[in-house]
Amino acid sequence: MTEIDRSEVAGLTPAQARARFRDGLVTPTAGWSRGWTQANLVVLPREEAYDFLVFAQRNPRACPVLEVFEPGAVSGALLDGDVRTDLPAYRVFRDGELVEEPTDVRSWWRDDLVSFLVGCSFTFEDALLVAGIDVRHQSEGVNVPMYRTSVRCRPAGALSGPLVVSMRPVPADRVADAVRVTSRYPGVHGAPVHVGDPGALGIEDLDRPDHGDAVTVRPGEVPVFWACGVTPQAAVVESRPTLALTHAPGHMLVTDGRDTDLLLA
Amino acid sequence: MTEIDRSEVAGLTPAQARARFRDGLVTPTAGWSRGWTQANLVVLPREEAYDFLVFAQRNPRACPVLEVFEPGAVSGALLDGDVRTDLPAYRVFRDGELVEEPTDVRSWWRDDLVSFLVGCSFTFEDALLVAGIDVRHQSEGVNVPMYRTSVRCRPAGALSGPLVVSMRPVPADRVADAVRVTSRYPGVHGAPVHVGDPGALGIEDLDRPDHGDAVTVRPGEVPVFWACGVTPQAAVVESRPTLALTHAPGHMLVTDGRDTDLLLA
Repeated sequence: MTEIDRSEVAGLTPAQARARFRDGLVTPTAGWSRGWTQANLVVLPREEAYDFLVFAQRNPRACPVLEVFEPGAVSGALLDGDVRTDLPAYRVFRDGELVEEPTDVRSWWRDDLVSFLVGCSFTFEDALLVAGIDVRHQSEGVNVPMYRTSVRCRPAGALSGPLVVSMRPVPADRVADAVRVTSRYPGVHGAPVHVGDPGALGIEDLDRPDHGDAVTVRPGEVPVFWACGVTPQAAVVESRPTLALTHAPGHMLVTDGRDTDLLLA
Repeated sequence: MTEIDRSEVAGLTPAQARARFRDGLVTPTAGWSRGWTQANLVVLPREEAYDFLVFAQRNPRACPVLEVFEPGAVSGALLDGDVRTDLPAYRVFRDGELVEEPTDVRSWWRDDLVSFLVGCSFTFEDALLVAGIDVRHQSEGVNVPMYRTSVRCRPAGALSGPLVVSMRPVPADRVADAVRVTSRYPGVHGAPVHVGDPGALGIEDLDRPDHGDAVTVRPGEVPVFWACGVTPQAAVVESRPTLALTHAPGHMLVTDGRDTDLLLA
């Protein structure tokens, strides 16, 4: 993200941000279009979509569904755009195998595909910053670190998989504040699922995340873990659907929804 | 509810309460098994279940799904019992027509039926009582008044219908408290959808609810309206599925879940 002016991209409207990605820019989206909701994307054939919704219902922390498009639709209430072109990067899975990481999925599109927009913890990062809590991957200009844990999600039909978490280091005396701030956003993963002790989650080395980039954990800081929208992606891959399209980790859909709409009164 | 000892039924475990209903007792369940979560029931063929989940996602205030059983299953994480026998009263709809109001639906059961447990505002009534706010239908020993409104839900596939609300009169100086208390329970309808002015919801006469019983609104009290779990029932009926089983309004499933699990931290 070194070539990107972070203060400039924070001020872009969602439509402006999506235009850049549609034009070919590939970058993690943390910090982009501040105040606008970013979403994980999972696209599945209609035949596999029911299991996905039940999986989401059973694992609401990891899989908070913000919107379900009609079968074949490329836009919806939260997106006045084209879900096939407007993300910086996608992943294409056939029978559970990653076959491509394109910047456009129009060639894969079918009329029976259902797009799920799933809440993303980037939404509450602005609230953390307002509370004076540094969001390390933003200040270090890298992608958020994500880890596959040894915790299993509740299965649903063909879908099962590990809980995937994102990690942000928080000073020990601000952990309670980080919990309070993020618990007000249940629609985007909400409160942390785990504080400290990566080993209890089966994470062997914080410096080697499964997705994204490692960040500095300073002395006096505690690693805090939130459920991550890559969780449904991992379950979808394990279930080996004939076709699945997703965002590339950290490369989210910038929607036309406002973060404040996800804030509890 | 005149023959029922209200303080006794408030103290029953869910299993004890369900045993009474299984043995034939027919009564609204408000005030029963205090502290344990009560749920609306909607049972649909698997083929119609996808639309129901999308409808729930699009109308979360009215249709907060607490659990989805596996197809054909009669119990689940929130029910160590039998969903076909353990409610005080059911409704059976064929092609959208109410054909029976039995106390047992075993004769209607099929292996492709999916049971949805949907949050019920009875859950937050205990919290209102603790806050010193009278719950009028409980103190008057009747069923909660429910109204079909002129507000339409967001449709999903074959499902569309009116928003149905429950009403509780609240003293004007306690309305803000009622909002605060109930907004901490988003999984069971959460904050009111409307305060005062029944006409704006298309309700012509508070004394003639569409379901349940009228309650006294005292001078200085304001009618406060919460989204009601009869909403999904109304949408299901309008969509005329081949078969639908539901609870009878006010006659809920007393689950093995605790209200505190639905309380926001």
